[in-house]
Amino acid sequence: MTTIYALDLFGVVVFAITGSLAAGKKRLDLFGVVVLALATALGGGTIRDVTLGALPVFWVSDPTYVIVAAATALATFVIVRCWRLPGGVLLVADAFGLAIFTVIGARKALEADVSPVIAVLMGMMTGVAGGMIRDVLSGEIPLILRREIYATASLCGAIVFATLSWGFPGAAANAVVAVVAILASRLAALKWGLSLPTFSPRESADRDGD
Amino acid sequence: MTTIYALDLFGVVVFAITGSLAAGKKRLDLFGVVVLALATALGGGTIRDVTLGALPVFWVSDPTYVIVAAATALATFVIVRCWRLPGGVLLVADAFGLAIFTVIGARKALEADVSPVIAVLMGMMTGVAGGMIRDVLSGEIPLILRREIYATASLCGAIVFATLSWGFPGAAANAVVAVVAILASRLAALKWGLSLPTFSPRESADRDGD
Amino acid sequence: MTTIYALDLFGVVVFAITGSLAAGKKRLDLFGVVVLALATALGGGTIRDVTLGALPVFWVSDPTYVIVAAATALATFVIVRCWRLPGGVLLVADAFGLAIFTVIGARKALEADVSPVIAVLMGMMTGVAGGMIRDVLSGEIPLILRREIYATASLCGAIVFATLSWGFPGAAANAVVAVVAILASRLAALKWGLSLPTFSPRESADRDGD
Repeated sequence: MTTIYALDLFGVVVFAITGSLAAGKKRLDLFGVVVLALATALGGGTIRDVTLGALPVFWVSDPTYVIVAAATALATFVIVRCWRLPGGVLLVADAFGLAIFTVIGARKALEADVSPVIAVLMGMMTGVAGGMIRDVLSGEIPLILRREIYATASLCGAIVFATLSWGFPGAAANAVVAVVAILASRLAALKWGLSLPTFSPRESADRDGD
Repeated sequence: MTTIYALDLFGVVVFAITGSLAAGKKRLDLFGVVVLALATALGGGTIRDVTLGALPVFWVSDPTYVIVAAATALATFVIVRCWRLPGGVLLVADAFGLAIFTVIGARKALEADVSPVIAVLMGMMTGVAGGMIRDVLSGEIPLILRREIYATASLCGAIVFATLSWGFPGAAANAVVAVVAILASRLAALKWGLSLPTFSPRESADRDGD
Repeated sequence: MTTIYALDLFGVVVFAITGSLAAGKKRLDLFGVVVLALATALGGGTIRDVTLGALPVFWVSDPTYVIVAAATALATFVIVRCWRLPGGVLLVADAFGLAIFTVIGARKALEADVSPVIAVLMGMMTGVAGGMIRDVLSGEIPLILRREIYATASLCGAIVFATLSWGFPGAAANAVVAVVAILASRLAALKWGLSLPTFSPRESADRDGD
């Protein structure tokens, strides 16, 4: 249990950093940085808890999440003024965060006794919704909707986790296998630039030559 | 009851198609198409259930909604690659979806024993919020806020339904009359290009000549 | 209790006006004006109630809020056609609305027995989230994230209120002191153009000369 809690907070730190950096690109002020960090780090889990009816949401019951996310945002705000974060490290950390949040989300949904389809959806939502809120608030079309394999890695991992949990209820190895599956597919997508096909309706295709 | 369920799923299919097509215009990838379809088809009902406190939300209790919306998105993704959807058919189907969702939303709110004002608002919210979420996620100002009579048709139908339900509690004809009212006003608005007055504050009007 | 209720409705009126005016700038139609007014006036309290699990949300239990916000939007729609609102009055009224909503939000959270950190966050969320939803729906990056001291005034006031409530539980003066603190800092920021430092990561700073 303590390991899961520590990993969960690690995910919060990573996503708070990505939220802060997105705020930096838009030249938001200190408050905007903290808001985007909180929304990115806590948004996915909030939507999961609200739709499941697990209220009050997790960060109301345990303010540690809010404090960790806000402290990370403040630290990022200070650190990037004098030190450039290496992009590669951040992308790998982000992949870890995605994997952890997905599995924790799916696990919480399964504990609430919902159908496996919903558990998979809740896992993915926990992993990617925070990033979507971050993008909407900073005036972008959510990157997740058009980027290389990202949510897809989360989706596959959630399916792996739900399937294993159905076959071997409660086995600790289920989470490990799912996390590894998400990390492997996400990092492979990053390394080789893999992506899903995009939507090209007939009429747009016809207009491509214009 | 079965008729209502079938109509509800028909509304899900129609809105999932409009969500998928919006994703197509923005060249989102396959995952983005499914997310926009789910948000459009299930968003309005989700906000209704959450604000009413009817938790967990409807699609957590009955995953059929999720499966139907996702399958519709995948089918749309494949079909539009080789076949052009006729715009007129889609607009009429969308009007049907709007009418069905509005009445189902108002009905669910009245069953939760809220005041008629709130039931009208919940009906309209169920009908139009999914489309608003779709537009925000795809980087547009929600069309519904500036388009020809759309939400207004939903609003009028919801008022008709709430009034009839107050006069004749539980009569099946209430829903039929309200659906017809929404369809008639929406299709009339489409045919004759009717619209509401727009907001023109004094100062903007003065600048119109520039 | 009656004073608080009256102040709360005053806040609803003020925020409904700012929502209507934002809709006017985007030339939305009458329906769009009402939707933006409702979202601005009721959005913050809705997110607070949902995350706290205080369901159904406040405006479902008491439709007066919805009616007041909608009537304000309609009145604004009519009035600005023939009469120009003085900007200064509106900014001061908006500062009052921010102060009232923040304290009411923090108070409601403390009554739900959450930790002080969460009560502060809930106060700020009640004060500023409505404006953020307004900006996202009208296609802007939320102003609050980049403007002069606004959310920061709300944050400080919420901290003052939570601290006083911890020291002197239930004292009526707590709310008065917190409202005055928010008003004073917000109006001072408006008068002297105070603002928080913005985020300037190393790499962007390097590109400033371009």
